[in-house]
Amino acid sequence: MGYALLDHSTDPPRILDCGIVETPRGVTAAERLLAIATALEHLIREYGPTAFAVERLYFNKNVRTAMAVAEARGVALLCAARGGLTVAEYTPQEVKLSVTGTGGADKKQVQRMLSAVLSLEAPITQDNVADAVAIALTHIRRAKWDSVVAAAT
Amino acid sequence: MGYALLDHSTDPPRILDCGIVETPRGVTAAERLLAIATALEHLIREYGPTAFAVERLYFNKNVRTAMAVAEARGVALLCAARGGLTVAEYTPQEVKLSVTGTGGADKKQVQRMLSAVLSLEAPITQDNVADAVAIALTHIRRAKWDSVVAAAT
Repeated sequence: MGYALLDHSTDPPRILDCGIVETPRGVTAAERLLAIATALEHLIREYGPTAFAVERLYFNKNVRTAMAVAEARGVALLCAARGGLTVAEYTPQEVKLSVTGTGGADKKQVQRMLSAVLSLEAPITQDNVADAVAIALTHIRRAKWDSVVAAAT
Repeated sequence: MGYALLDHSTDPPRILDCGIVETPRGVTAAERLLAIATALEHLIREYGPTAFAVERLYFNKNVRTAMAVAEARGVALLCAARGGLTVAEYTPQEVKLSVTGTGGADKKQVQRMLSAVLSLEAPITQDNVADAVAIALTHIRRAKWDSVVAAAT
């Protein structure tokens, strides 16, 4: 599971931390979920984020994988709720549209745009990490847009 | 989400508690999962169970429902891991086979068998609660069987 913490007070937003929540191999589903919860709670304590954005997934070719992903999503949502974070969900299409301007962009296009928009010295090449940064960026942009709209109306 | 706590030290096992984890209506997914975790943690503290058995589901006609169920399952598995409980998973077919003797039994047959096997004064008519009792009973039977096999070999 990829994660990213972005500071939205700078322009462009700054990546504070990102990576993969490592889960031990050859463990049970419950142990895997415990490792995810422990890691997320550690990140929430360390950085004190105020918002949590996560991918919304409806379909997956592999039902078994889809169930495992949904279980991890449930645990992540629980950690966010316990941490008092506001929660937002975005579909992959919304994320691609927000980051690249087109909902049909591929992963490489998203990664190139992240490098450009966030002025990264090195591109993010791990798919799960790039996805997490893209989702966080999408949420920052949506929140800014919402506040501009609210201020204007 | 139905739950049931059974005492396996008596014969037949005795239902200590069973019911539905109530979740508030019109709340977000994160708030729903938080309510489930809080309720399960309360039950684990109150009864101090040693084992946790849950339904294993691979398919659901409604993908949206399947995802919500898997998220709740993830939270339940996390609570079990945090509580130090051993975790077991059973498919609906395994549960029906264990309780009624046939994997194709319908819900009414399962409910009638639960009444008979557990010497219930009143039948359990709520599907989710009956499912939870049936899963717990399946686990007790499986654990007894395993211990008999282990003692004999």
